[in-house]
Amino acid sequence: MKIVIDVFLKSGILDPQGKATEHALAVLGFEGVEEVRIGKQIVLNLATKDAQEAISQADAMAKKLLVNEVIEDYTIEPIQ
Amino acid sequence: MKIVIDVFLKSGILDPQGKATEHALAVLGFEGVEEVRIGKQIVLNLATKDAQEAISQADAMAKKLLVNEVIEDYTIEPIQ
Repeated sequence: MKIVIDVFLKSGILDPQGKATEHALAVLGFEGVEEVRIGKQIVLNLATKDAQEAISQADAMAKKLLVNEVIEDYTIEPIQ
Repeated sequence: MKIVIDVFLKSGILDPQGKATEHALAVLGFEGVEEVRIGKQIVLNLATKDAQEAISQADAMAKKLLVNEVIEDYTIEPIQ
């Protein structure tokens, strides 16, 4: 069972990587870019075939290791 | 118009960040993790309101700056 965890900086937290990308796009001549935010997408391939169990395992992993909840938000979604 | 670009290492390309995460999860006692791959999720807020135009702008940005097509694949999706 595949699980996707999207991890993003909370809104209000400065995203230096996004800001740098915004600047680089402007330098390259791309216009109309209002904001860029860059997050992580973590794809876990779990042994379990049960979607609910996979989600709860992924949530435990997110809380314990993958996400810094002080500055980051996350969403968990099963695929296939 | 918001556009999400998901950037992933092509399958077959070693993902050291994913491997390190896999190892760390195992050390923490999480069982049944078969594979971890970590990609980038880039959210662009574009001035245009036209979905087709936003996608084609994002595609140009991906090809020129955001994605290394030698080792990475990407998908583009409009949101809202």
